[in-house]
Amino acid sequence: MNYPKGVKQVNNNSYIRYDNRGMGLESDINLTNQYYVDKGIAYIYKKPTPIQVTKVDYKNSGMVIKEAFFKEPSTTDYNGLYNGMYIDFEAKETNNATAFPLANIHMHQIEHIRHVIDNGGIGFVIVRFTKLNKTYILLGRDLVDFVDKKERKSIPIDYFATNGYIIKDGFIPRLDYLSIIKDVLGGCADGKKEKNY
Amino acid sequence: MNYPKGVKQVNNNSYIRYDNRGMGLESDINLTNQYYVDKGIAYIYKKPTPIQVTKVDYKNSGMVIKEAFFKEPSTTDYNGLYNGMYIDFEAKETNNATAFPLANIHMHQIEHIRHVIDNGGIGFVIVRFTKLNKTYILLGRDLVDFVDKKERKSIPIDYFATNGYIIKDGFIPRLDYLSIIKDVLGGCADGKKEKNY
Repeated sequence: MNYPKGVKQVNNNSYIRYDNRGMGLESDINLTNQYYVDKGIAYIYKKPTPIQVTKVDYKNSGMVIKEAFFKEPSTTDYNGLYNGMYIDFEAKETNNATAFPLANIHMHQIEHIRHVIDNGGIGFVIVRFTKLNKTYILLGRDLVDFVDKKERKSIPIDYFATNGYIIKDGFIPRLDYLSIIKDVLGGCADGKKEKNY
Repeated sequence: MNYPKGVKQVNNNSYIRYDNRGMGLESDINLTNQYYVDKGIAYIYKKPTPIQVTKVDYKNSGMVIKEAFFKEPSTTDYNGLYNGMYIDFEAKETNNATAFPLANIHMHQIEHIRHVIDNGGIGFVIVRFTKLNKTYILLGRDLVDFVDKKERKSIPIDYFATNGYIIKDGFIPRLDYLSIIKDVLGGCADGKKEKNY
């Protein structure tokens, strides 16, 4: 059973959601995004988790949702702006040391990234191989190319090493992924680019 | 009591959420966005409603959220891409025939629009005066300018007439707001622009 990020079992039948747990890739990205905003470098934010609400009660203290369901995400976790460019990405961790299983990304999310790059945005995934302590950016075009071939159900780490870009860990910012994007775009800062990513 | 869009009271103490009700501004925008995607014109999508989940139960059929709360939105309802440009907007209807009360937009949403335009994106609000059957675009810069003056708690319709742009109703697409954005940007289709909106 895969629980959404931040949901933790507290007994046999009850679960509590802890946000801002301060660990892992998501936390690194959130801290980095805050750094980007503070420095005026970029504005990247996390989208809400999609939830289907089916029942709501009204109490004195306000409205309480009494029944709802996590929906399959149709877009990615993060998007925003960097030097006028549209940035959009999904971030995933895997314990697998040799490959990234595509089951970790929903088909709707891959189609979302395809729409993003087809419409002139910068789409990518950030994948952390936790056992290897390596974090890669794989650009949307390379992700979509791999998926379209339908040859394998996971992306080998060699594919990341060949087509992706390592993001070095840092202190401040924690995970400077936009420096990679800047380099990939040839360091242009005015939003112009020659091809789709 | 203001319920989120699509939440309807069914008895004294129970509320049910109906999505896709097929009415009003939100429906017009969703249909228009689908048209834009189908025609390859743009990719604009609705963000999920932000919800704080506090209790989750596990049943045979899957996970069920048993307690959650609607959070105050920190971003806007819609964003996406048009000709490589970052598009971001909030859509609101008002029954007020003379002004748009600023209480309808959260301060976090206005700050979000400020971030968007400061980082080179196109931010705006779409406001429909239902009694007048008029729908306006007001660009982010004009919205932020008005709010920063702190003179009034609502934006008079004259301000929309002077600084905004009427969106004509249509059949297909229902509400062609991007044609306004294209005109405002001087018809440039390559994402270049001279100033912040």
